[in-house]
Amino acid sequence: MKNIDLNSDLGESFGAYTIGNDAAILPIVSSANVACGFHAGDPVVMRRTVKLAIDAGTAIGAHPGLPDLVGFGRRQMKISPDEAYAIVVYQVGALAAFVKAMGAHLQHVKPHGALYNMAAKDSALAEAIAKAVADVDSSLILYGLAGSELIKAAESEHIASASEVFADRRYMDDGSLMPRSEKGAVLSDEDEASAQALMMAERGEVVTASGRTIHVKADTLCIHGDTPKALAFAKRIRDDLSDCGIAIRPTGKFL
Amino acid sequence: MKNIDLNSDLGESFGAYTIGNDAAILPIVSSANVACGFHAGDPVVMRRTVKLAIDAGTAIGAHPGLPDLVGFGRRQMKISPDEAYAIVVYQVGALAAFVKAMGAHLQHVKPHGALYNMAAKDSALAEAIAKAVADVDSSLILYGLAGSELIKAAESEHIASASEVFADRRYMDDGSLMPRSEKGAVLSDEDEASAQALMMAERGEVVTASGRTIHVKADTLCIHGDTPKALAFAKRIRDDLSDCGIAIRPTGKFL
Amino acid sequence: MKNIDLNSDLGESFGAYTIGNDAAILPIVSSANVACGFHAGDPVVMRRTVKLAIDAGTAIGAHPGLPDLVGFGRRQMKISPDEAYAIVVYQVGALAAFVKAMGAHLQHVKPHGALYNMAAKDSALAEAIAKAVADVDSSLILYGLAGSELIKAAESEHIASASEVFADRRYMDDGSLMPRSEKGAVLSDEDEASAQALMMAERGEVVTASGRTIHVKADTLCIHGDTPKALAFAKRIRDDLSDCGIAIRPTGKFL
Amino acid sequence: MKNIDLNSDLGESFGAYTIGNDAAILPIVSSANVACGFHAGDPVVMRRTVKLAIDAGTAIGAHPGLPDLVGFGRRQMKISPDEAYAIVVYQVGALAAFVKAMGAHLQHVKPHGALYNMAAKDSALAEAIAKAVADVDSSLILYGLAGSELIKAAESEHIASASEVFADRRYMDDGSLMPRSEKGAVLSDEDEASAQALMMAERGEVVTASGRTIHVKADTLCIHGDTPKALAFAKRIRDDLSDCGIAIRPTGKFL
Repeated sequence: MKNIDLNSDLGESFGAYTIGNDAAILPIVSSANVACGFHAGDPVVMRRTVKLAIDAGTAIGAHPGLPDLVGFGRRQMKISPDEAYAIVVYQVGALAAFVKAMGAHLQHVKPHGALYNMAAKDSALAEAIAKAVADVDSSLILYGLAGSELIKAAESEHIASASEVFADRRYMDDGSLMPRSEKGAVLSDEDEASAQALMMAERGEVVTASGRTIHVKADTLCIHGDTPKALAFAKRIRDDLSDCGIAIRPTGKFL
Repeated sequence: MKNIDLNSDLGESFGAYTIGNDAAILPIVSSANVACGFHAGDPVVMRRTVKLAIDAGTAIGAHPGLPDLVGFGRRQMKISPDEAYAIVVYQVGALAAFVKAMGAHLQHVKPHGALYNMAAKDSALAEAIAKAVADVDSSLILYGLAGSELIKAAESEHIASASEVFADRRYMDDGSLMPRSEKGAVLSDEDEASAQALMMAERGEVVTASGRTIHVKADTLCIHGDTPKALAFAKRIRDDLSDCGIAIRPTGKFL
Repeated sequence: MKNIDLNSDLGESFGAYTIGNDAAILPIVSSANVACGFHAGDPVVMRRTVKLAIDAGTAIGAHPGLPDLVGFGRRQMKISPDEAYAIVVYQVGALAAFVKAMGAHLQHVKPHGALYNMAAKDSALAEAIAKAVADVDSSLILYGLAGSELIKAAESEHIASASEVFADRRYMDDGSLMPRSEKGAVLSDEDEASAQALMMAERGEVVTASGRTIHVKADTLCIHGDTPKALAFAKRIRDDLSDCGIAIRPTGKFL
Repeated sequence: MKNIDLNSDLGESFGAYTIGNDAAILPIVSSANVACGFHAGDPVVMRRTVKLAIDAGTAIGAHPGLPDLVGFGRRQMKISPDEAYAIVVYQVGALAAFVKAMGAHLQHVKPHGALYNMAAKDSALAEAIAKAVADVDSSLILYGLAGSELIKAAESEHIASASEVFADRRYMDDGSLMPRSEKGAVLSDEDEASAQALMMAERGEVVTASGRTIHVKADTLCIHGDTPKALAFAKRIRDDLSDCGIAIRPTGKFL
């Protein structure tokens, strides 16, 4: 039986500000990426989110980002590998403390936003992040874009990695995602997106923008739940995968 | 043989900004309180400071503060016990991750500045902080003002505590420190300050502002090293204590 | 004809985070208090909010707060008068620049949250804030709780002030607001709240918690618009006041 | 008689952190670029720095930077032109308020660090910055690298600009600075640096890395004063320029 993990970004509220619909998405996904206070989240929110995830039986991961709250960690910043290492150790440690305080277990680390995207292509940054994760806890699973430098870096650091795929993003022939700035980068048709998810989960393949079928490793699928529409689509993806006999389980159970 | 720990605040630099003289004070003290990024310090500085402390053989503690970088954590803020709990878990976890990444051991937690002072008198805040420390790692030693609510809270949480004393601060009859705003609050005479330190370390006693001799538990003595004068006095205190046969050791070795 | 200003806090969104319903409340109120980036708001939000207010024909004020984004400026902080002066000059200047860039005019300054509450009782803080406003632009109107130290400080600084009243807060015999922590502090009955607003606007009087009728100066009434219920009540208050022949106008038009 | 302005970055301290030697460099330069709280500086420091500059008779400029305190505004961030516009309006407004509160006059705006460097090459960013300056106060002088996009943008916005040159940086044939990462980028020989400054100030020419002599507009020369060595060199440059009959005056006096 095939396995796939469904992961979603959670705990992105901050102080008086609320983002997302954590309670609604938690029962749908198998792994939660919890923001760690740099691009989103704050200590009170982190504690609450970890509690919510534990209660829902969802596996927990740290979701470290760039120190850019006003930009939500989405703006690229030229940070050095040493800075990347330090901000990952810091944020993973902070989140891990809440998890430990509640007697639970931290499963994974998924870099957020611009840090994720930069680390997908920049090997020095990817190495620094993977080393940070390995140094904090070598049993952690590093989530990264399938085929990216982050996945390669996890291998060099001898830690487990989970190759992440996207249902609603168009792939290029080299396995990278079509930049959002380009037309057709996002699959707005839900049937098409669900079909892409299924094909990736079942056969490890995806049809690229040029029409070629390429191989793509699909350990975990990125799920959004911040709008009612996204939530409905998340449920549908889950059902479609289950109907095809694919088990939805946290990566820690099958990797 | 009597023991006393000498502790000092370290790792208070931030980005391009430098405060303190960490390399000089490390060989003098037995325990380092490392800033955790809220009132001072940043991830790169924390990593560097932990490395310095390990190399010097100094025991390491987390020094969590209020989220007030511009005020250096010295301005009182009305935070709730839940907020205090969360910011302590967060900061201790972040610092612990650097310590763990280098294969070392976190010995203690000492709240900083206004958080330390508020927790000395506010039992709800003290309880929240002690619970945070206990939840993250119940083997950690909580540093607090001798006789304060923080020490009592450590007892209720069944974690070890270290009663902190000050060589250069005037004590009141109830064991509290004379507020800095009052005249005579700081002992500017070094002979007098050294004598006070010795009396506290040897006999567990201090002469108060009113001339009474009261009992004070002295597990650890607060040391400053940020000026050449402070550094010289730190060395002198260390020598004076050693000359009187008092062993200077980290609290983890004798508590 | 009697005049009253209706003021509301706007521009409290931050980065990816949205708070409030600025477009809906703007046509109802006569003055907008725009957050300045310390407790809420950011430069992009400030620019957008000033534009919205100009388009709606609403008078614009700066709404400076404590440097506490995660606490939304609601947590008291022990800042010095010099710090209060500096953070008010800074924030008023920043907001004024957006107003000036669009060829409009800054009408007033209303301190936010804990800064407002502390300045209501602490004369040194109130003086510092009033001096900051006077120094930046002596034609600005300082908004403060009716009868508070802030109103007195505006007088000493020879700048205009607007005495603010609340429809839904219970008053004490000395003209202060009953603390929110006490039972009955908030008038949940809308008829009662509207009646209180009318009585304050028409006769300058309010019935206190003890049943006494006291004088209260009512230049401006605080309005909330962050929930559908609050918005509906805001419209009702506006209609009730208009129906009684009270003109709703920005303070700059009648003070 | 030829004129040149000497400008230096000031007010870069933050809270308990001190950087620079403002009191020492102020009498040497004719214009001060005052940090505005994003990459360095805070409201209290800004007020103090403006006072110092006024007392020294030095012209005052705003020195807006990226929102990156821990990186001191030196790390490139992918911000949009709208974001650049908003952070410049905000910071210039904040600094201008302190200047106005003391009855003085704001002369110029010089973007800091990575914002300066990005705006030198990115015309959209440069346009946004120049428009922000023009919108806040069209009499302000925009400082930018000689020959850069920032200077061109000032022209399109019909505001005055000051072309900045560097005594100790090697120039390329296209008038750009050799990147610091390359060998020979910094002129460590003081005689050579002083000669380059003189040649630029007197004849508007500089010898490039390839040995060619190119034209360079020199309205203002960047001066550092953060080390004793830098301070001594600053004095020497000032003396050398004066000895050659070049008048050292703020740009507002001759542009």
